[in-house]
Order: sequence, then C-alpha cells, then structure tokens
Amino acid sequence: MSKSDNYVKAGDNVVIYFTDKKKWLVRAKADEKLHTHLGYIELGSTIGKEYGSSVKTSLGERFWILKPTIIDLILKAERKTQIVYPKDLGMIASMTGISSGFTVVEAGTGSGVLTTFLANLVKPDGHVFSYEIRPEFIEMARKNIDRAGLSDFVTIKQSDAKKGFDEKDVDAVIIDVGDPWTLVRVAWEALKGGGVIASVSPTMNQVEKLVAELANVGFVKIESLELLLRNLEVRTGMTRPSMRMIGHTAYLTFARKIIMHEV
Amino acid sequence: MSKSDNYVKAGDNVVIYFTDKKKWLVRAKADEKLHTHLGYIELGSTIGKEYGSSVKTSLGERFWILKPTIIDLILKAERKTQIVYPKDLGMIASMTGISSGFTVVEAGTGSGVLTTFLANLVKPDGHVFSYEIRPEFIEMARKNIDRAGLSDFVTIKQSDAKKGFDEKDVDAVIIDVGDPWTLVRVAWEALKGGGVIASVSPTMNQVEKLVAELANVGFVKIESLELLLRNLEVRTGMTRPSMRMIGHTAYLTFARKIIMHEV
Amino acid sequence: MSKSDNYVKAGDNVVIYFTDKKKWLVRAKADEKLHTHLGYIELGSTIGKEYGSSVKTSLGERFWILKPTIIDLILKAERKTQIVYPKDLGMIASMTGISSGFTVVEAGTGSGVLTTFLANLVKPDGHVFSYEIRPEFIEMARKNIDRAGLSDFVTIKQSDAKKGFDEKDVDAVIIDVGDPWTLVRVAWEALKGGGVIASVSPTMNQVEKLVAELANVGFVKIESLELLLRNLEVRTGMTRPSMRMIGHTAYLTFARKIIMHEV
Amino acid sequence: MSKSDNYVKAGDNVVIYFTDKKKWLVRAKADEKLHTHLGYIELGSTIGKEYGSSVKTSLGERFWILKPTIIDLILKAERKTQIVYPKDLGMIASMTGISSGFTVVEAGTGSGVLTTFLANLVKPDGHVFSYEIRPEFIEMARKNIDRAGLSDFVTIKQSDAKKGFDEKDVDAVIIDVGDPWTLVRVAWEALKGGGVIASVSPTMNQVEKLVAELANVGFVKIESLELLLRNLEVRTGMTRPSMRMIGHTAYLTFARKIIMHEV
Repeated sequence: MSKSDNYVKAGDNVVIYFTDKKKWLVRAKADEKLHTHLGYIELGSTIGKEYGSSVKTSLGERFWILKPTIIDLILKAERKTQIVYPKDLGMIASMTGISSGFTVVEAGTGSGVLTTFLANLVKPDGHVFSYEIRPEFIEMARKNIDRAGLSDFVTIKQSDAKKGFDEKDVDAVIIDVGDPWTLVRVAWEALKGGGVIASVSPTMNQVEKLVAELANVGFVKIESLELLLRNLEVRTGMTRPSMRMIGHTAYLTFARKIIMHEV
Repeated sequence: MSKSDNYVKAGDNVVIYFTDKKKWLVRAKADEKLHTHLGYIELGSTIGKEYGSSVKTSLGERFWILKPTIIDLILKAERKTQIVYPKDLGMIASMTGISSGFTVVEAGTGSGVLTTFLANLVKPDGHVFSYEIRPEFIEMARKNIDRAGLSDFVTIKQSDAKKGFDEKDVDAVIIDVGDPWTLVRVAWEALKGGGVIASVSPTMNQVEKLVAELANVGFVKIESLELLLRNLEVRTGMTRPSMRMIGHTAYLTFARKIIMHEV
Repeated sequence: MSKSDNYVKAGDNVVIYFTDKKKWLVRAKADEKLHTHLGYIELGSTIGKEYGSSVKTSLGERFWILKPTIIDLILKAERKTQIVYPKDLGMIASMTGISSGFTVVEAGTGSGVLTTFLANLVKPDGHVFSYEIRPEFIEMARKNIDRAGLSDFVTIKQSDAKKGFDEKDVDAVIIDVGDPWTLVRVAWEALKGGGVIASVSPTMNQVEKLVAELANVGFVKIESLELLLRNLEVRTGMTRPSMRMIGHTAYLTFARKIIMHEV
Repeated sequence: MSKSDNYVKAGDNVVIYFTDKKKWLVRAKADEKLHTHLGYIELGSTIGKEYGSSVKTSLGERFWILKPTIIDLILKAERKTQIVYPKDLGMIASMTGISSGFTVVEAGTGSGVLTTFLANLVKPDGHVFSYEIRPEFIEMARKNIDRAGLSDFVTIKQSDAKKGFDEKDVDAVIIDVGDPWTLVRVAWEALKGGGVIASVSPTMNQVEKLVAELANVGFVKIESLELLLRNLEVRTGMTRPSMRMIGHTAYLTFARKIIMHEV
C-alpha cells in the first residue's frame, strides 16, 4: 500500500483515539465537531493528515487519528442484536478457512456485523449471500456494510432461510439464528461436498439440538467449542490478568458436509 | 465456485477423515496406500471422486474425503517449532483486520505456519514478507507454504530482523520470536502511520518487556490478551465441557503505530 | 501442636515426596520397601524421623517425608468412582460453611472421598451420615475413611436415599449421585429451615433438572457454578500458565431451604 | 443440631434474602427497620421466627430469613482491603487441610476476612495468631471476627511480621501481604517440619519472587495456581454460562517446609 493512500480524505471513517475507554468512530467532515469530556475537536482538521498522527482538542489534549480496522467498524456498528465478538469472528475465520474467493451463505443477517466480517474475508473475488426475514434489520445491515465499503461483496435477500437457499455448491454456510437446527437440511443442500457449516449459539440446549441434527442430516467433523478471552494488565513489576472479563458469549459449532451415496 | 472444481485430482492434498482422532492429510497418488488400524486405502481410488464422498478401507470401514482447509494444512504441517493455534491465528486475523491486499511483514518465519495463514488472508493481491535468520527453518517453511499453494504471496528473506526490514509503509508487522521487544523499533520504522503490530509470546515476562517498549517507541491502543479454548462434548441429555483442555498457548499483543511529530 | 507429635510412628501414613510427579503415600512399616525409579527406600527408616526431614534411596537420591494432608489422603485413596477435585471440595467447604459441629447428610458415599473431606470439616463434634445403596462401595469407603482416622465422625448407611433420610433438622445435605433431582424432596425433609444443599454434577442437563426441582420443592439462593483451575509455571523471567489443564470436572449447585407456611 | 436452636433470637445476625442481588445482613433488633426498594420490614418481627421462614415488607413482598453462613458474614464484612473470594478461601481450606485443632499463623490481618474464615476452620480446639502492623485495621478486624462469634479462636498481634512470629511448630502459615517473599524465612522458622505455607497475591511478579524465595529457604511441593469461577445461568431449555465473570482475583501459592540437616 503506497504511503500516499495513508492520508485522511473528506468523508473517511476515522477512529479518534484517546484511551481504550475513550475512542470514537466518526466521519471526517469539514463542519462538524466531536465533543468529548476533554474538549472538542474540529473534525475537518483531520482531513489531509496522515493516519497515526494527532490532533489537539480545544482543551489541549492530544487524540490520535487511526484508520478503522474491520473490527473498529464492527464494534461501533449500529445494531439491534447481540454482537458477535472479535474472538468468535476470528475463530470462524480460522476454523472455516473462509478467505478471498469463497462463496458464503449466511442465515440471519441481523445488523450485518458478521456479514461485514465475512465480506472482508472473501473480497475481492468471493461473495456473501445473506438471508434475513425481518425487513427492519435489512436497512441497518446495508448501512453497516456500506460504511465498511463492502457492499459489492454482499447480496442481502429478504427471505425465510427455512425455505431454502437459492445458491448451490457454496463453500460455507454460516448460521446465526436462534433455532439453527431448523436450517441444517437447507444448508446441506446449498453446500458443495465437504463444505463447511458454522453456527453461533449462546445456549447449550441450542448446541445439543444442532449437533444431533448435523449428524442426522449428513455432516462429520462436528465440533462445538467456546473461547474465553482474558486481557492481561501489563505494568512492569505488577502484571496480572484483568479483574473484568466476559464470562460467555456464544458456543461455536463447525462441521463438514458429507455425501452419503452408496460406495 | 463451480461444482466441477470439487473433485479430487491426482496430486491433490486430501484429508482422509474417520474421527477427530483418526484423520490423515495425504496426497492423492495412484500407487500409494494409506495404512491405518482399520485397514488400508488405495490413495489412487480417491482421484476423480467428489469431495465429501467416501472410500472404504480394505477392512470395509468408510472414510471421508475432505478438501483440506487452511487449518488442516497448518495443523499437519511439518514443523520444528511450537505451533500457533487456530484460536490465536483467528484472533490475529480479527484484531489486525489483515485481509486481501494487505502488505504484511513477519519476523520469525519458523516452520511457516503463521506465514501460511497470513498468506491465505492477503491473497490474491497482498503479500507477506517473512524474515528468518536460521537457514534450517527456511526450507521447511517453503515446503509448507508451497503445499498450501500460497508461494506466490510470500517472500522469505534470510536476514536478521533486528537489523531492520527492507519494506516501508506496510500495513502490519507480525512478530513471532522469543525476544519481541528487540524488534519494536524496526517494526515502527517499517509500518505506515496507524499500522498494526501483533506479537505472539508464551510468557508474561516477554509481554511485560514488549509492552513497555511499545509505549516507549510510539504505539497506542496496546492490548495484551489470551484465549482459552474449551470444547463442548455434546450428547443429547449429557452435554458438558470436555475434561481435556489446553491451559495456555500464548499471549497475543496488539498495538497501533503513532507518529509523534509536533502538533 | 507440640513438636513431639511431629515424628513418624510405626504404621503412620506418610508421603514420600520427590517431585509433584513422583510422590507416594505409604505406611511406615519396619519390613517394607518402597521401590522407585531412583532406587528403593526402607520404609522402616522413616520411623522416628521428624516430618519435613529426608531419607535417601539406595541410589542416593533424597526424598522428603511429609505428613499427609487431607487432600493427600483423598487423592491417593482407592476408588472406583470419579474423584471430587480439591478445587470443588474447597468450594463446597466455603459455600456451605460446613465446619466443626455440623450435622451433614451425604447421598452417594461412593469411594468415600467427599465423605472423608466432610468428616474432616465437622470433627470433633459434628457428624456425617452417608447413604450408599451399592454394597461394593461401602467397604472401600470405610477403608478410606478409616485410613484418614475419621471413622468416629461418619456413619455409613446402606440404604436407598430416594426413600428418605433418617436424620431430621440437619445443617447440610450433600448430593453426589447421577440423578440429583430425585433427592431434592427428601433433602428438604431432612434439612432444618435455612439449611444448605449442595450437589456435584458433571453435565449441564443434570443441573437443569436439579435447579428446576430445587425451585419447585422450596429452596432459594440457588446458584450453579464451576471452577477452572489453572496452574502457573513459575520460573524467574519465564513465568506462564501451564500448558496442561483440566477443562471441566463438575458443576456445583448450592441452595438454601425455605419454609413455605402462610405468613 | 436441635431444632430449638433454629429460631431467631434478639441480636442475632440474620440474612434477609429476596434475590441474589437483593439481600441484607442485619441484626434482629426490636426497634429497627430495614428499608428496601420493596418496602420496609420491622426487624423485631424476625425474632422468634424459624430460620428459613419469611417476613413480609410493608408493601407485601415476601423476604426470607436465613442464618448467615461464614461466607455471608465475610462478604458483608466491613473492610478497607481487597476481599479474599470464596473460591480462594475454599482452595486454601482444601489445599492446606486446615481444620479443627490446627495452630495457624496469619501475616496481614487486614480487615480480618481471611482470619474469620481460618478461625471457623480451626475451632473449637485450634487457634489463629494474626499479625498486623497497621493499628487502623486491627479494630475493624476485631469487630468483624467478633460479629462472626469467633473471637475466642483468634489472637491479633500488632507487630511487624518481618521481625518474626512468636509462635513455633505451627501447622500452617498464611500470608496475605503485598511483599510475601519478605516473610518466607520467618514463616519457615515458625512452622513445624512439613508444615504448610499458603500465600495470596494478585500479580505474577509477586509470585515469581515468592516462589524463588520458597525454594531458597527450604520448601518443597511448591505450587502456584489460580481459580476461575464461572456461574451457570440455568433456565430449562436456555442454559448457558453467565455473561458476567470475574477475570482474576489472586494467585495462590502453597508449599511444605523441609528440614535440611544432613542425612
């Protein structure tokens, strides 16, 4: 990436960073201010600055201008649904191997957070087809995906996933709905042989029903897991795990489609 | 992805899957056998079969033919070094946002496992420059990266990373060496403003020194963490977390480069 | 405790300690040898020695003589059943407050491991009444409790706990059986008002049924939890959590009996 | 315990329980009220009631009267210092085996929370000698220990533990200070051969220094660990680990004294 790309342009999404607790995702717009407890900054003053450099607030505090990562965009996305956490997004990426060129079907667009993450993985030559039945979510998801600049890699379909997916021979199906077991058969039909299914569910009862259905419909290598994220508070001579910790977000389940014709 | 691509060709890497404990990564070669405790299979018999279908062993057991994911390739790679685990690879993917088009510098190629994962993320239009001083590792890494079909996206350099990286304005620097704090300054010099650094270290003492140096050299948004992976043993009416669990693999540290010129 | 008590007497249980992986619980007997990979020791040679001092093996290695703690006795007890781990035993002690003078009913003596621990807490003026239906366990449990010197504080009853406990107005009921929900009503009948119930169960499904029954029969302050034990490998400058870890032992559930007469 | 003991007497500590978030530890006093968001209750009205029964508030809500366990007393104790958590208290109980009859020395009385727990374990025929240099803590600790009815089993000494303990041949030394390594030698001198030392420390740097000193002074079976407590949210068909969790409280270190005279 050439250095000349690394300057804020009008309209860019930028992270204004003070501390991990005090950071903002804003648009670099000429006539707007960001008001904080440490003074305001003129957002227009960020335009033309190099990413990684700083601006001062009206009270003289220095804030840093960072280009948002995909996670910055996701964590600050507008949403009505439970977020999928970075640890879980990453595990979906590594366990499914979804990367550029993959064709992915997603059931349950929701606010488009997971959709955005998947689109960023499959670009520039793959695609995400995302199914959502609730119209009120689709607009929000489109806005979030657009903000991340990933609309070209996503098609949202307002349709009941239970009735089946239009796509066939896809590489992966990602399920993020409350009753994932109801989508196992249609996922099997959409997947190519050996294709990957992944599902995100908060309760163990959901996982029980899902895993039974996966084995029943024709999947192997079924694995359910969860990740616990622990921050380390690092101070020289006083290092310790953080007191605060999220106890549970979701179980992740992965499996591979098999074809049961006679051998 | 068209269905016609989904058939085993001679020379392909294939996963032969029986159970999570009994699975093999092999080449589909006409004259070779895979010997197992459940009989052998003629590897040539997999050629032309659809992925997801099965072969029977000489003793009549059915094994499944799966296309290896990037993690299958990584976990079965030849190596002399400690592996980086899927949970940690995924977290690096999500926290750095490394995706297609990124220019990434890696310090410590080792067996090429992390290199392979990064190359799979940046393809088709990004690149990984990986530094390794020990010649005995470079050959092994090349072999592993080649097996994953990712050689076009990786340049391995036999050079001491402490002397600096040739690349400038890169998007991310990934450090996987025992003394990561010695590479913070050269990483800073290679990164573009706001660029991401990530490091993998097993001990708290390494993290302590690394974090102090990051703050000293010019990074913000410094975060150290670890992930604990817990498998769920799912059986209807008898679901419980697994008895066995890996207690610790590594701490991951992330930060963003800042530019300290006067404001 | 006077120092004169701190010497090995013939017949005492002693721990012979070399490392955490190499330690033995033996009787100090005149004519017996302990054979190890580092040579043998004459067990008679420990008699009269002060606890904390050492003996040398026939190959000149120094082993330490330690008085067994209650956990040393428990972890080395003969058993046919899944052990209850020190972390879980400790949590039962702290959450129930069982201490000297308590009257405790236990359902499911098993190998007597939990019984032994409870007896050590209630001595010298409390008592544990333990119910076990399987005769083959009772003998083993008696032997284990006797070895720990705690027989005076335990009464084992060969009886089906589902039919009810003989004791009334007890302080605590501890349940260690596979179908704990079947004992909630009889536990309620045995407990005094406000008395504590505690149960040990490996699966989430057991906990679900148990908690529903507790709320139904008349308990409040119902709490289910598990503990994850993580060892720290401490070496100066190289400190890290252990690679090995037990992923799950059991869920513990605690509640207090309420009396539902009209107010 | 006879049923007649199970009634509230004037002046008793009682827990008034509504939910886990709404519970109070109060004295049953004739002329006092407990004001809550659900109305008030006349505390005098609890006198003569059976534990486990209920009282109604002025607004008609039913609250339960429970006899406080040792943990209820500890968690509601007045304090100026970081609490020691039930999971850690329990692990100290099980790993040290401290029980009735033990002589225990504690360094760092603080608010007396750990002292109270230890006294409850050693009663009726053991004793805790607790050292505290800061006079402002001693009064608070005395009050907390007295409230738990355990004053007979505790002697608090205002003295600098670094200068040594008066007691000799004690069964266990418990260290709860910020620089535990400074007390290892005096602990060794106070302990009987084979005696147990336990220490509570939040940072890994404290543990590093402590463990090095333990090995140096003459301890074996040195073990450092931590416990992670995870609550399970149990609802039929919707069971999952709690979202909220404490990430870290303290590392616990245990060891046994050895006597290094020549063999």
